[in-house]
Amino acid sequence: MRNTQSIRGPVVPDRGLLRPLGTDEVRVVGGFWAVRQRVNGEATLGHALEWMDELGWTGNFTSVANGAGSRERRGREFSDSEVYKIVEAMSWEHGRSANSDLDDRIDALTSAFGAAQFEDGYLHTAFGRPWQRPRYSDLAWGHELYCTGHLLQAAVARTRTAGAGPLLDIARRAADHVCEVFGPDGSPAVCGHPEIEPALVELARLTGEQRYLDQAALFVDRRGYRTLPAHEFGWSYFNDDIPVRKATVLRGHAVRSLYLACGAVDVAVETGDDDLLAAVIEQFDHTWSRRTHITGGMGSRHQDEAFGDDFVLPADRAYAETCAGVATIMLAQRLLLATGDGRYADVVDRVLHNLVAAAISDDGRSFFYANTLHQRTPARAQGNGERLDVGGGLRAPWFEVSCCLPNIARLLASLSSYLVTADETGLRLHQYADCDVETQLSDGRPVGLEVRTSYPDGGDVALRVTRSDGGTPWSVSLRVPGWAAGAVLVLDHERRPVAPGDVVLTREWAVGQEIRLELPMRPRFVRPDPRIDAVRGCVAIERGPLVMCAESLGEIDLDALRVCAGHAPAQTGDGSVVRARFDAARESSWPYGEPAGRPGTFAPLHLLPYHRWARRGPATMRVWLPTT
Amino acid sequence: MRNTQSIRGPVVPDRGLLRPLGTDEVRVVGGFWAVRQRVNGEATLGHALEWMDELGWTGNFTSVANGAGSRERRGREFSDSEVYKIVEAMSWEHGRSANSDLDDRIDALTSAFGAAQFEDGYLHTAFGRPWQRPRYSDLAWGHELYCTGHLLQAAVARTRTAGAGPLLDIARRAADHVCEVFGPDGSPAVCGHPEIEPALVELARLTGEQRYLDQAALFVDRRGYRTLPAHEFGWSYFNDDIPVRKATVLRGHAVRSLYLACGAVDVAVETGDDDLLAAVIEQFDHTWSRRTHITGGMGSRHQDEAFGDDFVLPADRAYAETCAGVATIMLAQRLLLATGDGRYADVVDRVLHNLVAAAISDDGRSFFYANTLHQRTPARAQGNGERLDVGGGLRAPWFEVSCCLPNIARLLASLSSYLVTADETGLRLHQYADCDVETQLSDGRPVGLEVRTSYPDGGDVALRVTRSDGGTPWSVSLRVPGWAAGAVLVLDHERRPVAPGDVVLTREWAVGQEIRLELPMRPRFVRPDPRIDAVRGCVAIERGPLVMCAESLGEIDLDALRVCAGHAPAQTGDGSVVRARFDAARESSWPYGEPAGRPGTFAPLHLLPYHRWARRGPATMRVWLPTT
Repeated sequence: MRNTQSIRGPVVPDRGLLRPLGTDEVRVVGGFWAVRQRVNGEATLGHALEWMDELGWTGNFTSVANGAGSRERRGREFSDSEVYKIVEAMSWEHGRSANSDLDDRIDALTSAFGAAQFEDGYLHTAFGRPWQRPRYSDLAWGHELYCTGHLLQAAVARTRTAGAGPLLDIARRAADHVCEVFGPDGSPAVCGHPEIEPALVELARLTGEQRYLDQAALFVDRRGYRTLPAHEFGWSYFNDDIPVRKATVLRGHAVRSLYLACGAVDVAVETGDDDLLAAVIEQFDHTWSRRTHITGGMGSRHQDEAFGDDFVLPADRAYAETCAGVATIMLAQRLLLATGDGRYADVVDRVLHNLVAAAISDDGRSFFYANTLHQRTPARAQGNGERLDVGGGLRAPWFEVSCCLPNIARLLASLSSYLVTADETGLRLHQYADCDVETQLSDGRPVGLEVRTSYPDGGDVALRVTRSDGGTPWSVSLRVPGWAAGAVLVLDHERRPVAPGDVVLTREWAVGQEIRLELPMRPRFVRPDPRIDAVRGCVAIERGPLVMCAESLGEIDLDALRVCAGHAPAQTGDGSVVRARFDAARESSWPYGEPAGRPGTFAPLHLLPYHRWARRGPATMRVWLPTT
Repeated sequence: MRNTQSIRGPVVPDRGLLRPLGTDEVRVVGGFWAVRQRVNGEATLGHALEWMDELGWTGNFTSVANGAGSRERRGREFSDSEVYKIVEAMSWEHGRSANSDLDDRIDALTSAFGAAQFEDGYLHTAFGRPWQRPRYSDLAWGHELYCTGHLLQAAVARTRTAGAGPLLDIARRAADHVCEVFGPDGSPAVCGHPEIEPALVELARLTGEQRYLDQAALFVDRRGYRTLPAHEFGWSYFNDDIPVRKATVLRGHAVRSLYLACGAVDVAVETGDDDLLAAVIEQFDHTWSRRTHITGGMGSRHQDEAFGDDFVLPADRAYAETCAGVATIMLAQRLLLATGDGRYADVVDRVLHNLVAAAISDDGRSFFYANTLHQRTPARAQGNGERLDVGGGLRAPWFEVSCCLPNIARLLASLSSYLVTADETGLRLHQYADCDVETQLSDGRPVGLEVRTSYPDGGDVALRVTRSDGGTPWSVSLRVPGWAAGAVLVLDHERRPVAPGDVVLTREWAVGQEIRLELPMRPRFVRPDPRIDAVRGCVAIERGPLVMCAESLGEIDLDALRVCAGHAPAQTGDGSVVRARFDAARESSWPYGEPAGRPGTFAPLHLLPYHRWARRGPATMRVWLPTT
């Protein structure tokens, strides 16, 4: 039996090796992520709501309920989902901060959802009314089931943080309707954008309703048979090219592919379907080893927001959509919970610190949609009606397709659920942040830890036992990240080296006992697999979990930069430094021939964390630095 | 006064340094391009017509003339233009081969065009009838003026090859209508896709109608002020971001940008507007030196078919649309005629042999839309209703947007007009093909040359004077391509080295006199400008005008390939050979770290001309080869 008293997070499997702690069992109390959670709650949520109000996305629910004459529906087919996602984010934030303004706003929006819902449970503001297109008449692009999925996830968040209420009723009716229409005897179809799959499983976990799980399994198994209409980008775009069980790599539209994989893991875990789980693991591992940027960014193509072929990872046209980053964390966390394999915690760590942290501005009011690894020309502040290029090196307050901001918001508000889990023997720490942990082990014993760290900028992780009955051994497991060769563990004044992987310490812990992990924070060169043509002859610099970058506001020419790879990078008070040369290229009327160039002189090059780039103004930037 | 008795080609400036010869003054009689011209006439034209008949594009003209009830219009907004382009191609081919079947087909289509034309001259099958959208209601995407431009070019071709007739009447009425609607007192608008500009100038050249030239100048000058609606890709997509006179580089959608530049050169030449000409020269030269693939391919982005930033030239995601290649030839030839600068003939040479020749299959019935420089996984033969990926390494019989095939067809059918020009003193040979040249110099003297060559596979060019009055000196100018350092000229049994550039020989030529040019055909390494990140650490191999490539049908792993750059490439009987090593990469769960790899053993690597790739079956391929 699992602990059901706490405020549970977004993903709470009934099976799997690890039990995620509730969002009240792990409280982030300071440091890198506490700042971002606070900004998220105080600025981002309100900012997103203002935009959605202004653009009419929230108002759509009321206006369609009032009939055709009231107002034209506004926004794209998927705008409902953004409202649901922000309600999900507000729900987690309300659970975290008990901000009653959020409570009121959620209730008001819930009323609007209820008014727009049909008698039979169907709920979408763009389809199904006499003046609109018929329900499910455009499964490929209509995003109806996708929106329903986000409604369900919002209801899960609201219910877990505030108890059952009208939003859960709305969600159940919507889910029942989906089961009616698309059940075993219904329409044998799938939605163009996966999302309903993990949402139905989570609603099943919340409510105990087997039917929702069965429906999710049906959707997972139905996909891959080309039942969606042919499309210029191919069926892979929809992940409708190959059944999930048979695919060997993630492909097509990155977010679609990752959301589907999340749903497949959820179904596999709940049904004990090890073959399905193994298929997703193979897909993810292949993708991580061959189709992922060093930042953890996935999806290399602008054209179709898709994965490219293996090793096609252009730094300067990296798409690495923010939503794909959030989805990668969602999937990796599910795989961590299912398998207990700490590699997936490394994945979460990398994507959190190098993609999510990069995507959002310090004030929480603008964000990247795409996350390039190389900006060759400074972003141009746009205006005069010109739409923002999603890949332009400029954080923007909003986009026409603004999925990324609410996605970050819901992740940040629920972040504490990603840090620590429990297994049969004790606690496992996966992500390092200043936090206080209190929970009960499966035998009911209360345990507690205080975690203090300067991570990701520093490598010190200090733990102190705050609760323990002292009489029975339990374990504390610490993740030593894959990059952290040379880490040291300090326990009872004894220092010992620990290798990457999970270090498990089992003791009769006494309150006040301390554990210290020291991760090596010397900056290091990282070299790409030689099959990644786009960054051949380059190195990247990492420091701890952070990918570093060179940025220029005009003071240096990053095109001329050559790093001396024989000279190890160093750390100074204000950042990482490498030795670099700035070569002048030979100008020519044709760029192919015998480029002589003129070697420059060596000078120190200061690097900053990639997540800090483009915060001082329009800049050029590169993560991958050519070598001499 | 220019010679007006010959069959003039597609571009016949009234001014400029060089006079293009008529298509009957230069006859291609054998060799590389004669084969392609024959296949074009015998297969490609019929193939394209069959598709256009089947898809209803040709039938649209009749059906809209018969009213709303007859049949739904088929195809995209620009399908009319494809019919016009194929009529242009058929006209040049009819002029070249006197195939009377083509004559009949052109007449039949002309009748259909006439039936669909409105009383006031407007002609487009998708707009303006009671059951259609209003005329010019969607200038950004409707392609109405774009289609009209192709109509005008078809009429120019028909008139120059068969004399004035009904197609010229239709075109004049359409052009008059355009001048009415968009003239100085009319709508101050431009079309989303340039094309009307060069077409109006050529119609002015043909008819002597000043008004058409004025209208073209108006369109050129009007663009760049953001009068088209805002678009996700920015106004640069339409080249409506910056006025032509102020721009310094080609940008946005490649074909749009190149067509506009053609029109600007045409206007500049006819009006003596040296500033406008200088602006386009600057734009082209910048683009050629920083935004062009080694094959001469332009437009590096799939997403918006656009130029990327300077030096963003990914081999594996090169778009390099075939139409952009044709447009590059159109622009370079115009710049050659205007300036006499042989560098532009080098451009035509490179694009002809490495892009146009690559794009079309040997049987003339399938073609590339995009021309990648690196195919990592073999193209998959598609079917089952899946649309062809335009960049998939597979020549396809047709695409939904099938602009490229008719564009190649019209270029091949009129190719002889690109080979030889005349200036005040004599003949200038720009492109080498087996051809017979007969014309009159500006003083009326008849001159003739026979050119025989194995170019581009061989470097021998043999000329024989076939007509000359013998008593007055005239000049023969031969282009020594930029890559041909070490070329030798043989005249009167005397050999002398000649440097790249134009070699001008002025003599009292006697009939039978021979000139021989020997171009060095040893394969050579070519290195990229270090600012092109995508191909850092790689070399390409060129031989004569041909870019070479490595291709594999599975026998070798091109990802593992490392070329020994210290070992000069050699030529054997059956192709170019370099020394290469095949390294095994270290497999890892994360591709960034310390890739050790295992050096393989050296073996010879055979290369083939890039234009020959993907003709043996689905293959991997790379132009840029990593070095050891």
